[in-house]
Amino acid sequence: MMGALEHRKGGSLPVVVQNVKRANLDLVDEFAELGVATVHEAQRRTGLLASYLRPIYRPARVAGTALTCEVAPGDNWMLHVAVEQARPGDLLVVAPTSPCEDGYFGELLATSYMAHEVRGLVIDAGVRDVARLTEMRFPVWSKAVSARGTVKETPANVQVPIVCAGAYVRPGDVIIADDDGVVVVPREHAPLVLERARAREAEEAEKRDRLGKGELGLDMYAMREKLAQRGLEYVSEPGT
Amino acid sequence: MMGALEHRKGGSLPVVVQNVKRANLDLVDEFAELGVATVHEAQRRTGLLASYLRPIYRPARVAGTALTCEVAPGDNWMLHVAVEQARPGDLLVVAPTSPCEDGYFGELLATSYMAHEVRGLVIDAGVRDVARLTEMRFPVWSKAVSARGTVKETPANVQVPIVCAGAYVRPGDVIIADDDGVVVVPREHAPLVLERARAREAEEAEKRDRLGKGELGLDMYAMREKLAQRGLEYVSEPGT
Amino acid sequence: MMGALEHRKGGSLPVVVQNVKRANLDLVDEFAELGVATVHEAQRRTGLLASYLRPIYRPARVAGTALTCEVAPGDNWMLHVAVEQARPGDLLVVAPTSPCEDGYFGELLATSYMAHEVRGLVIDAGVRDVARLTEMRFPVWSKAVSARGTVKETPANVQVPIVCAGAYVRPGDVIIADDDGVVVVPREHAPLVLERARAREAEEAEKRDRLGKGELGLDMYAMREKLAQRGLEYVSEPGT
Amino acid sequence: MMGALEHRKGGSLPVVVQNVKRANLDLVDEFAELGVATVHEAQRRTGLLASYLRPIYRPARVAGTALTCEVAPGDNWMLHVAVEQARPGDLLVVAPTSPCEDGYFGELLATSYMAHEVRGLVIDAGVRDVARLTEMRFPVWSKAVSARGTVKETPANVQVPIVCAGAYVRPGDVIIADDDGVVVVPREHAPLVLERARAREAEEAEKRDRLGKGELGLDMYAMREKLAQRGLEYVSEPGT
Amino acid sequence: MMGALEHRKGGSLPVVVQNVKRANLDLVDEFAELGVATVHEAQRRTGLLASYLRPIYRPARVAGTALTCEVAPGDNWMLHVAVEQARPGDLLVVAPTSPCEDGYFGELLATSYMAHEVRGLVIDAGVRDVARLTEMRFPVWSKAVSARGTVKETPANVQVPIVCAGAYVRPGDVIIADDDGVVVVPREHAPLVLERARAREAEEAEKRDRLGKGELGLDMYAMREKLAQRGLEYVSEPGT
Amino acid sequence: MMGALEHRKGGSLPVVVQNVKRANLDLVDEFAELGVATVHEAQRRTGLLASYLRPIYRPARVAGTALTCEVAPGDNWMLHVAVEQARPGDLLVVAPTSPCEDGYFGELLATSYMAHEVRGLVIDAGVRDVARLTEMRFPVWSKAVSARGTVKETPANVQVPIVCAGAYVRPGDVIIADDDGVVVVPREHAPLVLERARAREAEEAEKRDRLGKGELGLDMYAMREKLAQRGLEYVSEPGT
Repeated sequence: MMGALEHRKGGSLPVVVQNVKRANLDLVDEFAELGVATVHEAQRRTGLLASYLRPIYRPARVAGTALTCEVAPGDNWMLHVAVEQARPGDLLVVAPTSPCEDGYFGELLATSYMAHEVRGLVIDAGVRDVARLTEMRFPVWSKAVSARGTVKETPANVQVPIVCAGAYVRPGDVIIADDDGVVVVPREHAPLVLERARAREAEEAEKRDRLGKGELGLDMYAMREKLAQRGLEYVSEPGT
Repeated sequence: MMGALEHRKGGSLPVVVQNVKRANLDLVDEFAELGVATVHEAQRRTGLLASYLRPIYRPARVAGTALTCEVAPGDNWMLHVAVEQARPGDLLVVAPTSPCEDGYFGELLATSYMAHEVRGLVIDAGVRDVARLTEMRFPVWSKAVSARGTVKETPANVQVPIVCAGAYVRPGDVIIADDDGVVVVPREHAPLVLERARAREAEEAEKRDRLGKGELGLDMYAMREKLAQRGLEYVSEPGT
Repeated sequence: MMGALEHRKGGSLPVVVQNVKRANLDLVDEFAELGVATVHEAQRRTGLLASYLRPIYRPARVAGTALTCEVAPGDNWMLHVAVEQARPGDLLVVAPTSPCEDGYFGELLATSYMAHEVRGLVIDAGVRDVARLTEMRFPVWSKAVSARGTVKETPANVQVPIVCAGAYVRPGDVIIADDDGVVVVPREHAPLVLERARAREAEEAEKRDRLGKGELGLDMYAMREKLAQRGLEYVSEPGT
Repeated sequence: MMGALEHRKGGSLPVVVQNVKRANLDLVDEFAELGVATVHEAQRRTGLLASYLRPIYRPARVAGTALTCEVAPGDNWMLHVAVEQARPGDLLVVAPTSPCEDGYFGELLATSYMAHEVRGLVIDAGVRDVARLTEMRFPVWSKAVSARGTVKETPANVQVPIVCAGAYVRPGDVIIADDDGVVVVPREHAPLVLERARAREAEEAEKRDRLGKGELGLDMYAMREKLAQRGLEYVSEPGT
Repeated sequence: MMGALEHRKGGSLPVVVQNVKRANLDLVDEFAELGVATVHEAQRRTGLLASYLRPIYRPARVAGTALTCEVAPGDNWMLHVAVEQARPGDLLVVAPTSPCEDGYFGELLATSYMAHEVRGLVIDAGVRDVARLTEMRFPVWSKAVSARGTVKETPANVQVPIVCAGAYVRPGDVIIADDDGVVVVPREHAPLVLERARAREAEEAEKRDRLGKGELGLDMYAMREKLAQRGLEYVSEPGT
Repeated sequence: MMGALEHRKGGSLPVVVQNVKRANLDLVDEFAELGVATVHEAQRRTGLLASYLRPIYRPARVAGTALTCEVAPGDNWMLHVAVEQARPGDLLVVAPTSPCEDGYFGELLATSYMAHEVRGLVIDAGVRDVARLTEMRFPVWSKAVSARGTVKETPANVQVPIVCAGAYVRPGDVIIADDDGVVVVPREHAPLVLERARAREAEEAEKRDRLGKGELGLDMYAMREKLAQRGLEYVSEPGT
């Protein structure tokens, strides 16, 4: 991304970076099956977006390649610019340049993005027309629901690295989103993280079986000794 | 409303204003079909209540004439006073005199208001019995859900202009509420706003068709030149 | 609870209190039928947990005996310790020692707790795997939904009195949770509170009937005189 | 204000209302001596702006006539328009059309407003250059301190009634601000409220003396009987 | 406290518990010298009130014995009741029965409490007249500053155990408050905690000297081996 | 930073990156003279950290090179690791891996960092001993003040790129902090941004003079025509 960074030198004029490389879509689709919590763990608990991003309907689960877009507060102009950069399998990731909960995105934009095979939206701001978006099954994770409209006056960057809900997201990275939230996997780490996530899922299946039969985590994970070393004591309620 | 204002002179004793004029119910019913985002836009982005007001169940959509009610913090006495002022088609709009999230309203009050053909509740505070209210299909937009009960000790004003969730609402104004939030239309502007909202909806249908076929907003709205003037540049990711 | 308190003297080493006495499960099950708002009122508006605790799915209603557990921020170790103390009918109540919204609890722990007949979870922190927990019908009231994982490094107390979401909860107390929130009833007061709650529900049925027929609360509760004494005036909108 | 309202019909084009009538400055100056809490009480606990508005330095106390100004989110254009409407004794009151914490106002604007004898700023948004504003002794009550700059693209209304931090403020109304917060007094009620506030202050002086000598409020306000009627009981800690 | 608890059985009528035993004032005064962070550590990181409680002026430091008081939302009646229970060295600790930021306490009440030798106020709500309280040097830790006045209608409990800002506080417990916040020490543990706190302070003096000379905590606490075991790696920035 | 990124592949084991290149300290010192708002503007409104970061005392102003440090929630272990990497002129920038307001940093750590000539602290979490830090003139910008102590159990990364309070900060970047907040300037852009910031400051001096003499921004910036084009109308209050 050095190139894109170069263009932003000292906060230069806004750019749209074209022809961004994406993570492989076959990998992306496998991530969707695993879910956010598993991928986040497989990535050693990194890459999670802030938990205030919530889905507009549940259940919802999707994975895609990040199509990143900055927007000015109360200004959704760049969403019209970003859709031209979309490729099938993309997931739109939007961050305002200062905190704002206005309704940047609604039915018309969703219609446009769906026509370009974008799979959903993650936005650190507000969204509207949520009843229609729900009917259309266009999944959205947002900070707020707000009918408040926006203007089209101030340009900003499209397809550059952004910070969205506290996480650093680069264009083309893998985004996975479900009822638990949203996680980003850097595109170059996708194969490794996927492999670890699958391994984790396999292990969890076995653990689930054992826990379902009543086995204690204390025994399964051999925790008793370490707990004792840390000073945990067992006592009885007096009078019992 | 000069009269009512007069009664509140310097914060005088609390009043109940009777026989308030309402917006025409035929108009009100048409607003419900259009939804909050459209009406808000038709009104040039004014009149929206804060986005923290959320419906207790979804989908929900309603329009009514504002029956306004102030309440003291932790005190729902005036809700019993306000119901006597209700007319069919009203929508109860409640604002506490200082921020409070207690559960001011529940099944019993909903039963009473429904018996008087009130269509729903917008409250900048808490509500309870939400499972029952959902079964009864009594729609509520609130700041919180809370089982916390309230006392009946301190009078406040009924059917006077209030500020509810950041918006100025006068008795008899039109209130429209749906999954996107709540908007108020001053009763005297209702015909004009309705006309604009219908026009907007017609335009949107055409735009939706075009966007659905893949046409870009950049072209449909002829944005490219203005973006260039504002300095937006297109670059390619290096190495591509 | 003096004994447990003794063990915590000056913030001593962490303890697990065993063999805690629980409220009678027959009473507990009757509480579930009454719901949170009614019980809270019957208890003279005490015992309610903060309203930011929300159910992960709706409708949900459950009652159980509190199995209390402290956890360090970002550390869910004690949840593995607490399950060993579970008895059928318990409801897990978790409070972090400092505010944290990480996802302390997910599918594996739910599987384990269900195997030990724990009825649900109240947690002043985050939870994950909410899609799976919903399918499993394991009810949870939490402050947040977050995929963020936790470590297992720092012990804390199990089955001691805790403050959870602003309420004081002792092990074995009755916890009732539904769509309106969560309330705690001290185990020794359970019979009295239950009796009052039943009485209240009976009264409410009659009031609901009268209100449903259009009778005003103003008359039913004979409020008019007191309102006049407090200075409430009735006026008419000028010009009407 | 009907005229100004007329201009905003259905959310019409933005206006600047000129030649607004102000409250009498002699009265305004007397309000400053009394302070916010006293005025708020004298006005029967109405007119207070939300408590999240805080002064940028303390102590600070000022009163002025409201010069009202709406601004778009992240856009401070109208602050340059409003200063032309300023008269000596005005106090600038700013509300964004949707919530925003950007730094709308800094040293340059303060220099301009001071040159036009504006006494201070109340803003339901952010402010910057607070170290300089403090040196200049230009008092500001704001929701946030933020260095974030704003654009100049979207017009909004100047000198129309606004909702600022939850209170309805009309141009020319009296604004009093001190370390406790901000209160608005409708200009036509100013003489009556001032009279009541002075009376209250006189009473308080006497009460303060008596309380300072150790007399109890219980006796001074003759509360004991009413407390007993409400069921308050006195008990002793067991074992004492 | 069983007795007091008994009186609150099932949420019974409100009580004032008289003649509560306090922690020894000589111990209390020694706590004030040590400060909140040290006492909190000495108590193994328990007893801290939520960090949103902030002092109205800084620096401030005080210790006292808890005089506990519940108040209804927007109702400060009980503060007039509580002062009669005050003894020299007490510190008033106030918790509303539901969250409220109104200004419960101001100059008149401070005058009254100072006359009864109460040392300060900790309140999980709002306070007003902060400029005057600052001049009077009456220290207050509060959740908010608000000029909003309160009514006197609803009784609540005085000198019973309460939850204040997330901590469980019993009448007579030691409260220490300074610029860092507020901590409670159960009265029966005061001697032990004080002893530990003094020991900690002595140790810290030595550590401070060593760190001030540039010694690393890594060496002073012998952390390097444990860090390596946990997998921490040292690498160099490439190209350096 | 590719190297450091490589080490974090898929969330690998934690690393300490040594020998990080810093921005030139002469440039850094010049930034301190200019202040945050000016630098932020010179950088075209990028690089600002969230406005909830506030200084523990005012006025305060500092610039330094970022010494970045991640910490686990409730765990300050890495702060002992980071100090070994400090160079004179550094400013410590700390981000928790999940939101936490505990008091990670106090007098002992400040003593250690001052001994290593670190100029201050920016932390997206809590800090304690603020009275002492104020006396020591060790400037801190934090999200919270909290006496809550932390453990030393979980390693995290030191001197890698982090997201702190919503901004992307790389080790060695320039950090400027004052009463208005905190801004980051990428080290390679420092000369260009500094040049622009100086130019801006020169321009502002002239503007300040003209505004101070009463000239309107409307005229100085030639805004009237554009406002008219956007439809701004001037009207008079009726009856005047």
